[in-house]
Amino acid sequence: MKKVISIDRTKLPTEQPDPVIINRWHCDIPMAAYVNPGESFRVECFDWTGGQIENNDSANDIRDVNLAPCHHLSGPVGVRGAEPGDLLVVDILDIGPFEDSEWGYTGIFSKEKFGGFLTDYFPNTAKAVWDFNGIYATSRHIPNLRFAGLTHPGIIGCLPSRELLTEWNRREAELIATDPNRVPPLALPPNPQDVILGSLKGAELAAAAKEGARTVPPREHGGNCDIKNLCRGSRVYLPVYVKDGGLVVGDLHFSQGDGEITFCGAIEMAGWMDMHVDLIKDGCNKYGIKQAMFEPGPVDPNYSDFLVFEGISVDDHGNQRYLDVNLAYQQACMHAVNYLKNFGYTGEQVYTILSCAPVEGHVSSIVDIPNACVAVQIPTRIFDFDIRPNAKGPTKHVPKSDLAYET
Amino acid sequence: MKKVISIDRTKLPTEQPDPVIINRWHCDIPMAAYVNPGESFRVECFDWTGGQIENNDSANDIRDVNLAPCHHLSGPVGVRGAEPGDLLVVDILDIGPFEDSEWGYTGIFSKEKFGGFLTDYFPNTAKAVWDFNGIYATSRHIPNLRFAGLTHPGIIGCLPSRELLTEWNRREAELIATDPNRVPPLALPPNPQDVILGSLKGAELAAAAKEGARTVPPREHGGNCDIKNLCRGSRVYLPVYVKDGGLVVGDLHFSQGDGEITFCGAIEMAGWMDMHVDLIKDGCNKYGIKQAMFEPGPVDPNYSDFLVFEGISVDDHGNQRYLDVNLAYQQACMHAVNYLKNFGYTGEQVYTILSCAPVEGHVSSIVDIPNACVAVQIPTRIFDFDIRPNAKGPTKHVPKSDLAYET
Amino acid sequence: MKKVISIDRTKLPTEQPDPVIINRWHCDIPMAAYVNPGESFRVECFDWTGGQIENNDSANDIRDVNLAPCHHLSGPVGVRGAEPGDLLVVDILDIGPFEDSEWGYTGIFSKEKFGGFLTDYFPNTAKAVWDFNGIYATSRHIPNLRFAGLTHPGIIGCLPSRELLTEWNRREAELIATDPNRVPPLALPPNPQDVILGSLKGAELAAAAKEGARTVPPREHGGNCDIKNLCRGSRVYLPVYVKDGGLVVGDLHFSQGDGEITFCGAIEMAGWMDMHVDLIKDGCNKYGIKQAMFEPGPVDPNYSDFLVFEGISVDDHGNQRYLDVNLAYQQACMHAVNYLKNFGYTGEQVYTILSCAPVEGHVSSIVDIPNACVAVQIPTRIFDFDIRPNAKGPTKHVPKSDLAYET
Amino acid sequence: MKKVISIDRTKLPTEQPDPVIINRWHCDIPMAAYVNPGESFRVECFDWTGGQIENNDSANDIRDVNLAPCHHLSGPVGVRGAEPGDLLVVDILDIGPFEDSEWGYTGIFSKEKFGGFLTDYFPNTAKAVWDFNGIYATSRHIPNLRFAGLTHPGIIGCLPSRELLTEWNRREAELIATDPNRVPPLALPPNPQDVILGSLKGAELAAAAKEGARTVPPREHGGNCDIKNLCRGSRVYLPVYVKDGGLVVGDLHFSQGDGEITFCGAIEMAGWMDMHVDLIKDGCNKYGIKQAMFEPGPVDPNYSDFLVFEGISVDDHGNQRYLDVNLAYQQACMHAVNYLKNFGYTGEQVYTILSCAPVEGHVSSIVDIPNACVAVQIPTRIFDFDIRPNAKGPTKHVPKSDLAYET
Repeated sequence: MKKVISIDRTKLPTEQPDPVIINRWHCDIPMAAYVNPGESFRVECFDWTGGQIENNDSANDIRDVNLAPCHHLSGPVGVRGAEPGDLLVVDILDIGPFEDSEWGYTGIFSKEKFGGFLTDYFPNTAKAVWDFNGIYATSRHIPNLRFAGLTHPGIIGCLPSRELLTEWNRREAELIATDPNRVPPLALPPNPQDVILGSLKGAELAAAAKEGARTVPPREHGGNCDIKNLCRGSRVYLPVYVKDGGLVVGDLHFSQGDGEITFCGAIEMAGWMDMHVDLIKDGCNKYGIKQAMFEPGPVDPNYSDFLVFEGISVDDHGNQRYLDVNLAYQQACMHAVNYLKNFGYTGEQVYTILSCAPVEGHVSSIVDIPNACVAVQIPTRIFDFDIRPNAKGPTKHVPKSDLAYET
Repeated sequence: MKKVISIDRTKLPTEQPDPVIINRWHCDIPMAAYVNPGESFRVECFDWTGGQIENNDSANDIRDVNLAPCHHLSGPVGVRGAEPGDLLVVDILDIGPFEDSEWGYTGIFSKEKFGGFLTDYFPNTAKAVWDFNGIYATSRHIPNLRFAGLTHPGIIGCLPSRELLTEWNRREAELIATDPNRVPPLALPPNPQDVILGSLKGAELAAAAKEGARTVPPREHGGNCDIKNLCRGSRVYLPVYVKDGGLVVGDLHFSQGDGEITFCGAIEMAGWMDMHVDLIKDGCNKYGIKQAMFEPGPVDPNYSDFLVFEGISVDDHGNQRYLDVNLAYQQACMHAVNYLKNFGYTGEQVYTILSCAPVEGHVSSIVDIPNACVAVQIPTRIFDFDIRPNAKGPTKHVPKSDLAYET
Repeated sequence: MKKVISIDRTKLPTEQPDPVIINRWHCDIPMAAYVNPGESFRVECFDWTGGQIENNDSANDIRDVNLAPCHHLSGPVGVRGAEPGDLLVVDILDIGPFEDSEWGYTGIFSKEKFGGFLTDYFPNTAKAVWDFNGIYATSRHIPNLRFAGLTHPGIIGCLPSRELLTEWNRREAELIATDPNRVPPLALPPNPQDVILGSLKGAELAAAAKEGARTVPPREHGGNCDIKNLCRGSRVYLPVYVKDGGLVVGDLHFSQGDGEITFCGAIEMAGWMDMHVDLIKDGCNKYGIKQAMFEPGPVDPNYSDFLVFEGISVDDHGNQRYLDVNLAYQQACMHAVNYLKNFGYTGEQVYTILSCAPVEGHVSSIVDIPNACVAVQIPTRIFDFDIRPNAKGPTKHVPKSDLAYET
Repeated sequence: MKKVISIDRTKLPTEQPDPVIINRWHCDIPMAAYVNPGESFRVECFDWTGGQIENNDSANDIRDVNLAPCHHLSGPVGVRGAEPGDLLVVDILDIGPFEDSEWGYTGIFSKEKFGGFLTDYFPNTAKAVWDFNGIYATSRHIPNLRFAGLTHPGIIGCLPSRELLTEWNRREAELIATDPNRVPPLALPPNPQDVILGSLKGAELAAAAKEGARTVPPREHGGNCDIKNLCRGSRVYLPVYVKDGGLVVGDLHFSQGDGEITFCGAIEMAGWMDMHVDLIKDGCNKYGIKQAMFEPGPVDPNYSDFLVFEGISVDDHGNQRYLDVNLAYQQACMHAVNYLKNFGYTGEQVYTILSCAPVEGHVSSIVDIPNACVAVQIPTRIFDFDIRPNAKGPTKHVPKSDLAYET
């Protein structure tokens, strides 16, 4: 596979020989490489933190991670002939870790550091390290578990136009302004600290760094959509906003469940992604498309036996909320957590399983006032014991174990 | 199959020869029939409105439907030996329409009548009538479409204890009190009008009617969970709260997508459901289970090709909301609506397809501040033309047609 | 569903009020009913023996079954406008047992009565009776087992032309002539005994009975193809050979594995089948089609965990055969039989499971001289214990039990 | 992944620096490497011909291939502690081509060179070259086609004991003796020409070469079983016959259909395979296992739409054969060939598709005398046009093209 973006993992993201890393969205970033429509090619990627997390048994690196330069993304790749209004058709041909780096990690962030979806239940920093065994992931921090990964890019999208960038900054600033001192913050404004924008340097870099959009949220262009089914073999349709498109990818995930709920919640990894691109000229206009869309690939793990936990929008104190899907989803997750603790897992272990494994989070009903209902589906075959209820009650199959914490 | 609950569809729900219909949840409803653990049996059900909707081309019946007596449910079926704290294991063996009534309907409700998930976009009353062709549904109101149904009960659950009922009423009353005159209402308080509680009569009925919980929301016992994958072959684990359990089912759906978004949003039907029951004694306590859970069955339609629409929590006016899954879900739906209109469908037709067909609504990311991301997956093979984008742009395959409206 | 073929199960097949039963293939059988292209309709069917087998615990009825009048099929249904050379498109909308007859049976035939695929290992007459529990089958003769059925018609096809009928009789007679006294026979010649051909009577019946082709083998028109995936929701393309097509169906199977290996090897049942028909005019010629073809439906059971047994073309005495798929298939089956006997089943029980359950028989390699290789895939989730090998070795989970035998 | 078997592809198989290649089965081959139970490791493999076939547009290399030294396999890998009677549990973690060699080939062999399953229809030597695009294969010799591969080892097994080897040679010699001059031969006797047996040299090699079993047929130990579903993620159970087991693998296939019908019929490739091993001590005896068995993995391509062709055991001249699955399979294949030629493919192109793509070959019925019925299932989504019949008849979508032939 022709490699158009190479990284040197022995050097920091800021010290790469080729200017192929970016960590903000901006319309003025020069293309790092070019391909033609119809071409297949490989892009190499750092993990999202740019190598800050290590394969060890301490969560200190999760606690101390510098988020200002995150995510570290690869690109932009220019597609010759792409113009605003086109639809860029990207086939995700394959994704993998580097051969000398067959591991990944999942982090639970403390509230000071954004927290996660269940941060009120699990406020402490923690980490799980995963070993990749071909298609399977296992973790010394979560025994009795093995699953085939839903390997996908957390982030994929084209560079925004200036107009779109301005709109993003406007609307997010307005939200932040409603509660500017909130912890965790409502959103992240542009932050010139630690900005990398490929070959942009000096005054141009300084100017762009002031207005470059943070990479955390998914937006119209796709971006950090974190969709677990955007897997090997998928075809993604991306709106083009600038000349040559400017395709950017990164934040590779060996696996993730719906929601990526611990925040640093997929199995995060460095690695490579092979793609094929094509163009539907004027496709956004022909179809009126305003947001990325895709077709999933044919090799998602075929788990078909699930145990499903329901959640409704009533909080732990008995307060009724109105069609609140977020709360219903939290409740369904906590039912799963409490159930799986029966077998010997800690809450943090289950929280991590829900976040990383091929777990489905369905919005089951959204109109039955006042309760939303969410169904969280856990494949039963990923455990090496039977998790289904039986007449005897639960047996502790899992030996005493836990995630890595601060040391 | 042994029939333990029979209904007479030539008579109104209020005039049934056997007192087997209930339309509120209450702890004091006498059992309508008894079965033993290990037994299989059939229960017949009205559609949720008790027969108010007709197979015609006017939506007047949707507009005029009396919701006070809804849903019309069948039961309670007592399971001998069931005691509070047990887990009732219900296998859903099969579900079907009555042989002389192989049709169903989907309604879009106006805002005055609860509205639906996209009521701001589709405020008008409308109706689609579906023909059942064995495993397939088709509609004269939505051409070029045929799909295998995800047939399931919208409602399944055991009677609540008095304690649980009191709690439901407390918390929902508190919510209503925050905005008592809202249209549509935040929740529905007990309403003694048109209450049916099986064989309960006179003063006992009057007393229970004043406090019986409405059947609209899903709650801890399951209830109106509207989970599309609670399909033929599923095994449901239901907490038992009263002596003999008191299993109640109804609101049968020939098919439904995640969310059931038009409110009356499944393909609603009258019919029968065959079940097998067993007990895990003290199962709720052994496993610490506080909410219904289940395993899906093995015959859900195996559609594997999807076109997926993404949505984020930014509204149509560019206002940014914080991790608002509901909004992201609406946006993903509207992207699908606008896209499929390219082929000749009206917005109301697509809204109905999203609500009824085997459409998946996944919470893709819920931690990437400030945007939640939802992915709405539509199986491509349910259309008789190719909905995927191509270089030529869309062709109008669908002949001029529409749902039924008020006449 | 409009019923175009009704049977009276209180009467013998020979005494039906409507002349809708046939048990030979012949070009001159008058249509029993007519439908239009685009129509959906129901056809009722006897089980293949016409009601000779009973729901009891003796295999005497299997031993004594009169095969001369088998199979008892329903039709022919004329499709208006169908002409030779057309392709009849039949959608199998749904199939089910009669409501008062929710059971079926599987028979092992003795060698004198055709035997079965493993007749040298299992020469004795035996029977299993199955109960239908909605989508699931269970048998009091084979405990610890429950599976979702692959419900399909064993037989579906159009009436042959005279020319085709003559060809069938010629080629089968030539085969029989090579060993006319073989037990079991190589093939079945026309046999005028017990012939039923719908409304054909008297001299016409007598003439046709002498030349009507037996219904046992699958042939170009489809016929007794016994394809397990010709399931609910399938679309079948059938060549038309006579004016109005003459669609005939029967031999309904609640479930069957690949091969239907015990001969009377599916779960045989009486019941109904709903179909929709359409025509591709001149389709056989346009596409050069000479044999029935089909698309499987979307609701086949989704079992995804299998234990797979291999077999090669070496017999039990160590004799090597050349690319003999039949022998390789027998060997794979016998490996499965011997393996599952570890858990307490008898050989006859496993033989029956292989024949009825959703078991796959794949021709894995057919060119690796001198051994063919066949893979027999058994879904593991149909057993209520784990059949996979483990370090402890097998445990006898199955209580002492067996099929029904002669009494 | 720890690499225990490395090959040097710049050198011939006979000139490898490490003695890790074998091309016959023999009990005396020394272990090439050792692993422990519980370990994961990588093995590198030549393609089966040891590099004789090139990525070009001439089939001369297929015509001239030297089959005496084939297959070129990697091993044996000793598993410490393995003893005869144990069951070796091998997890196939992943398989891939070398990074600098992302292509494969399929060959049609002439009758002089074994021929293939349809050699009477396609007697000429031909070749298709495939490009690997991540999970997908495409070929410049077969346009309008792309499919996700069923990547697996054609060959996996443990070394035979002397007793088993003697038995293999006995039974195959007896078969050959029945027609010793047949072309193609009935089986292949030991052939000392071009034998490689790892580190065995001199007189020991000469002695072993005289009796080493050829690698073409699948046998009890697994061997060249060519089972397409023995895919990434599978768990294989292999009988152990010699001390330390002696695990041997090779003949890697990027993809293959059931039957591998063109003989050199998979997409053949060089590459690597990652495995994890464990032991069930005395497992063969505990379970009475006499032949390899396996569980398929969870990431097989999930194609669910098929067009299925039926075949029966009547030959092209109208001769009726008795339950001949081989003939029925050939007929089903030829129906598919003739059908797909409607769209512009040559017969050889379709023959190759049937051999390589994820095509299923099911033994549908094997007891309906005199016809066996085989169903060949082709996934429809692997073509970029719709292959299903319609009212208009077929359109030639495929541009003039063909396989590579002799030049």
